[in-house]
Amino acid sequence: MTEFNSLYCKGCWQQMRMPIFIRSPLSVPFRLIGVKPSRMHPNLCTVCELMFTKVKKKKQIDIQATVMFADLRGYTRLSERADSAGIARLLDKFYDECAPAIWKRDGIINKMIGDAVLSIFNFPLERQDHVRQAVLAAIEIQRQCGDMQSELSGLAGAEGPVKIGIGIHTGTASIGEFGTAYKDFTIIGSVVNKASRIQGAAESGEILISDDAYRSIREDYPDLEPRTYRLKGIDQPVAAYAVPS
Amino acid sequence: MTEFNSLYCKGCWQQMRMPIFIRSPLSVPFRLIGVKPSRMHPNLCTVCELMFTKVKKKKQIDIQATVMFADLRGYTRLSERADSAGIARLLDKFYDECAPAIWKRDGIINKMIGDAVLSIFNFPLERQDHVRQAVLAAIEIQRQCGDMQSELSGLAGAEGPVKIGIGIHTGTASIGEFGTAYKDFTIIGSVVNKASRIQGAAESGEILISDDAYRSIREDYPDLEPRTYRLKGIDQPVAAYAVPS
Repeated sequence: MTEFNSLYCKGCWQQMRMPIFIRSPLSVPFRLIGVKPSRMHPNLCTVCELMFTKVKKKKQIDIQATVMFADLRGYTRLSERADSAGIARLLDKFYDECAPAIWKRDGIINKMIGDAVLSIFNFPLERQDHVRQAVLAAIEIQRQCGDMQSELSGLAGAEGPVKIGIGIHTGTASIGEFGTAYKDFTIIGSVVNKASRIQGAAESGEILISDDAYRSIREDYPDLEPRTYRLKGIDQPVAAYAVPS
Repeated sequence: MTEFNSLYCKGCWQQMRMPIFIRSPLSVPFRLIGVKPSRMHPNLCTVCELMFTKVKKKKQIDIQATVMFADLRGYTRLSERADSAGIARLLDKFYDECAPAIWKRDGIINKMIGDAVLSIFNFPLERQDHVRQAVLAAIEIQRQCGDMQSELSGLAGAEGPVKIGIGIHTGTASIGEFGTAYKDFTIIGSVVNKASRIQGAAESGEILISDDAYRSIREDYPDLEPRTYRLKGIDQPVAAYAVPS
């Protein structure tokens, strides 16, 4: 993964033109003050998300972002039947396919939630085409996890292939630290909830995107037909589009 | 929070009788090698969970644990209506009530997932009565969040009180690091999924515990009546008990 070996933090460089070294001997002084590559993206540094909020003097800031949820379908049922070593292998594979697909498109992994990944595009690395980048990451995840199924077919307790459902939505969200005793860096707002609910509505193997997301990439897929969903906690019917992978 | 100011890591002390200082000037040499108080519990150190897996030479280990999920009900609907500053205040309160209630009983916060908290009891700090401790934490969270409702009643978009649903289950689970490119410290297994599903079945304001959990605390609540649930992904009907808060 040579592309994830940047010598300096690309977020600090893009936002402030500051060369914060995170690899090579040049990184030693930064490591001494606790700055190192971030878990959320190997080309970002550990403090850059907080630096942005510090620069703006707020605990949370509003951003334009694309949120993608990807979820392993049938995980609960599989966990009931397979041994823990098999489930661990499955999660290792899933995480290891998702992470580079997201990072390559300048997205970050905000958190892994057992059988699901929550990722964010356009923060802190800004890209005009963040919706397209999220969709490309989703397509790569679906393709790679298609390949994964044959490897996992021998997993004790698995019946049929293990598939992924993906949901994508875009809009304004709040990002920053929540809580004071226990601080958690995350993203909140209706964009996040709707992305999560759309992911829940996606069929196994499907990439389902909101109408707001579709508007940004319509030229790539001009002929998708809208479907209407009733989603828990959302009053209005939601239109979404299935992107072919 | 004076009780969360231990000078040394209580996990390393309990497991290995090693005094790893995490506060006071004695902690300076440890900080220089990157050891500091853990986010999951302020009286533990950052590397002690990994130290346990390193001592046992495995990426994951099987443990006896009690898992508690607590979830803010109606969060999606509220997020659709309230402003992000109001939602941020709500999450700050929720996290800040949950964290000390869990830490006081030697539980750890494994992760916050938007409107939910996943906590683990009996790892790495071992306690014979880990089920009871989880139930006591749940009772405190319900009581404190009952108090919280009056403060939140002014929140724009909130209709009626914001309540919590809690689910608890106990048994053998796998804990450790999953993934290689992106490493995530978490707990997996049917215990975790069942705790999550039981939490989903709990009414607002309720603490619902599995029959396995109930067996450990029956002497505290001898007269609870079992209820039977059909839970997604679990073939057999599940018996659970509502603990009064």
